[in-house]
Amino acid sequence: MVIDAKELYEKIDEFMDQEVTLQGWIRNHRKQKEFGFIDFSDGTCFNHIQVVYDNKLKDFLDIQKYRVGSAIEVLGKVVASPKEGQVFEIQASKVILLGDCPEDYPIQPKKHSREFLREQAYLRPRTNLFQAVFRVRSVAAYAIHKYFQEHGYVYFHAPLITASDCEGAGEMFHVTCMDLENVPKVDGKVDYSKDMFLKPASLTVSGQLEAETFALAYKKTYTFGPTFRAEHSNTKVHANEFWMIEPEIAFCDLKQNMDIMEEMLKFVVRYILDHCQDEMKFLDKFVEKGLIEKLTKLVHSKFTRITHKEVIDILQKADVKWEFEPKQGEDIAKEHEKYITEYFGGPVFITDWPKDIKAFYMKQNPDGKTVAAVDLEVPGAGEIMGGSQREEDYDKLVRRMDELGMDKSELDWYINLRKFGGCVHSGFGMGFERILIYLTGVENIRDVIPYPRTPGNCDF
Amino acid sequence: MVIDAKELYEKIDEFMDQEVTLQGWIRNHRKQKEFGFIDFSDGTCFNHIQVVYDNKLKDFLDIQKYRVGSAIEVLGKVVASPKEGQVFEIQASKVILLGDCPEDYPIQPKKHSREFLREQAYLRPRTNLFQAVFRVRSVAAYAIHKYFQEHGYVYFHAPLITASDCEGAGEMFHVTCMDLENVPKVDGKVDYSKDMFLKPASLTVSGQLEAETFALAYKKTYTFGPTFRAEHSNTKVHANEFWMIEPEIAFCDLKQNMDIMEEMLKFVVRYILDHCQDEMKFLDKFVEKGLIEKLTKLVHSKFTRITHKEVIDILQKADVKWEFEPKQGEDIAKEHEKYITEYFGGPVFITDWPKDIKAFYMKQNPDGKTVAAVDLEVPGAGEIMGGSQREEDYDKLVRRMDELGMDKSELDWYINLRKFGGCVHSGFGMGFERILIYLTGVENIRDVIPYPRTPGNCDF
Repeated sequence: MVIDAKELYEKIDEFMDQEVTLQGWIRNHRKQKEFGFIDFSDGTCFNHIQVVYDNKLKDFLDIQKYRVGSAIEVLGKVVASPKEGQVFEIQASKVILLGDCPEDYPIQPKKHSREFLREQAYLRPRTNLFQAVFRVRSVAAYAIHKYFQEHGYVYFHAPLITASDCEGAGEMFHVTCMDLENVPKVDGKVDYSKDMFLKPASLTVSGQLEAETFALAYKKTYTFGPTFRAEHSNTKVHANEFWMIEPEIAFCDLKQNMDIMEEMLKFVVRYILDHCQDEMKFLDKFVEKGLIEKLTKLVHSKFTRITHKEVIDILQKADVKWEFEPKQGEDIAKEHEKYITEYFGGPVFITDWPKDIKAFYMKQNPDGKTVAAVDLEVPGAGEIMGGSQREEDYDKLVRRMDELGMDKSELDWYINLRKFGGCVHSGFGMGFERILIYLTGVENIRDVIPYPRTPGNCDF
Repeated sequence: MVIDAKELYEKIDEFMDQEVTLQGWIRNHRKQKEFGFIDFSDGTCFNHIQVVYDNKLKDFLDIQKYRVGSAIEVLGKVVASPKEGQVFEIQASKVILLGDCPEDYPIQPKKHSREFLREQAYLRPRTNLFQAVFRVRSVAAYAIHKYFQEHGYVYFHAPLITASDCEGAGEMFHVTCMDLENVPKVDGKVDYSKDMFLKPASLTVSGQLEAETFALAYKKTYTFGPTFRAEHSNTKVHANEFWMIEPEIAFCDLKQNMDIMEEMLKFVVRYILDHCQDEMKFLDKFVEKGLIEKLTKLVHSKFTRITHKEVIDILQKADVKWEFEPKQGEDIAKEHEKYITEYFGGPVFITDWPKDIKAFYMKQNPDGKTVAAVDLEVPGAGEIMGGSQREEDYDKLVRRMDELGMDKSELDWYINLRKFGGCVHSGFGMGFERILIYLTGVENIRDVIPYPRTPGNCDF
């Protein structure tokens, strides 16, 4: 019976002094005259296992030739390790080569630059850094599902191909099965009657509007799926394809929305600290010093709640030379986000934003100037989530759409939600990769997505 | 404190004779001279709650005017119900209208055709049928994550936009941000240097090849994400956008692969039977008689394992007039699938398929004619999963790709997996909607996807 490294670590008391069989890969290989030491990993847990073999094995010299990267099977005894900080090692009775690896294998046991590893993206999960990052990604995804499912939310798969382009006009990818070499036309215009959906179609930028239809049937719903932006932004935080979580809750106002945002984020952070201990220790040591402390502090902090107006007041009174002067009624910049989280020494919910810089569907406040929107700013990362109470008033919503010159015909169903048993409801959006950057300390979005899509990059 | 209907049902002993507040919608409303009965649902659980109010309330006549579909708040006492099969009801002291609903609300308390409800897709989760179906969808998705996460699999987000079209040539949607009215050209050809990724890009048909790269780093991985087909198929089981689960496991042969398929499917079915009891009772009664029995039987059955050759032998010996004559070396038809699951009285794994009807990456058997592929056939649904051992031999894989005239340049990374510590590995694919059709008894894929995309349909 082959055993996973993860199980061996978890049940080491049970396996100590027992014979086991392992299958995995050679991550490093040190050779001495009488001994060999294989740094072994099967990828089921972050920690490697030291495999020791000696020259009493009849194929000792052959084993010494096994190269880094090779797939092997190890039979041996679990024994207490003399090495400090290492509970056990394997005394091998057999080491069988399952799959060879050539000398020119790109992933050698040394430091590779992240740029180099991006080019070798299909091999980088074999390195410690990416082994850690992509397991955190997996566990964080599960934690998010767990939080919402255990709180009675219905998981909603928003459509990816969409014909409504309300939010992302100009930033959407076209989806078509027409021949691009020879686009069918009629009267000089594209003839969409020849396309799959008989009209222009795009990749979605958000599943929120559709999620609201589920909130008004199930009370609590969330999306977790890919979204797209056809932006030519070559920054550390932009990708053309990324995953979003968009919860929507009926009978929920802005205040309750913030309660949920705070509780959910703390749940996910705590889950990662509990379930990815080895990965987090590694990231804390090699990627972001103080990472675990930062996250632990978040879990135990009370999030400040303050209005946009109050934030601008504080910024204007601050004895700081701003690059961008803070102004009432305007957006806040990165430097302001940084100042305000430091000012309060923790995460800050900023509420009641100027309506002109926010989306059409947000609830208009009685002042006529602001909307019931909220951004969550966290120390060291800035904005990581945004949400709002949704405008539940049919007339106000229609008026706002008209003011913005929006085409209401594709969104009649959305507007109708305010007519057919509408109610106070709220929701928020969370870019999954933004959370991962915060959780892992890895600062480039290209390094938290297995196969990132950015301008000019669509490999693998 | 507002309480969810779900919590009230779960803790009814605790809440009996207590005052509670509920927020939700009127699903039906019966009026008598001295009483009114509101069929109330807040969507947090399948079962509704009966709210009774009487003419002692000073706004009795106003409340009687509340229409079906309206959002309301109910304050009242939980009391034992005199009605058979109903444990409790609410004796209302207040019923407050939160959101009105007009007379012409499309979802009235009567039977609507599924075709009609497809046109009202944004309202259909408010009906019993779709309330049940989409909660089963949510819970099944969670069960799948739960199975894989608890068994140590790493959740892998495969890229959706892809430049490799190995599997789906001709059936892929193009993704572009070029202006379709005026596609940029150079020398009469599309000038992809003007597009986002500087080359043609499409929507993926499968994340399997990329998932294999994770299997060879983490041993166990799975995808769960959307995939696309640009097919003009107007059938009950085809959609242009659907969700797939694609597990990949290193050091795993075809036999172990089948063990996992069987265990996983049983886990998911059992989870649904346990966690969606009210939904399943409803579906059993109104959609597919015997549904619960069918699923319970599956959980307790041993899946038969038989080769494609043996299946053809059985079919050829059968005393049946076939529409399609079964032949060695050829695919099997729906009627054959049906016969074979009835022959064995349960699910059947059919293995070792003719290589010419299977994909290039499947492991070639020593006979030179078949591959180590497997399809799982279940009674009443036919094929619901397919998998294979993957060709781990570098030379054989390359030869097969050459035979098929495939362009290897975009897949060098995939081929290299066989060079850099390659090993026996296997995986399978599961169409999420196919499983849902099986679990719910709802036979049209348009009715298990919230907003289905099919030829000519891209609404909401």
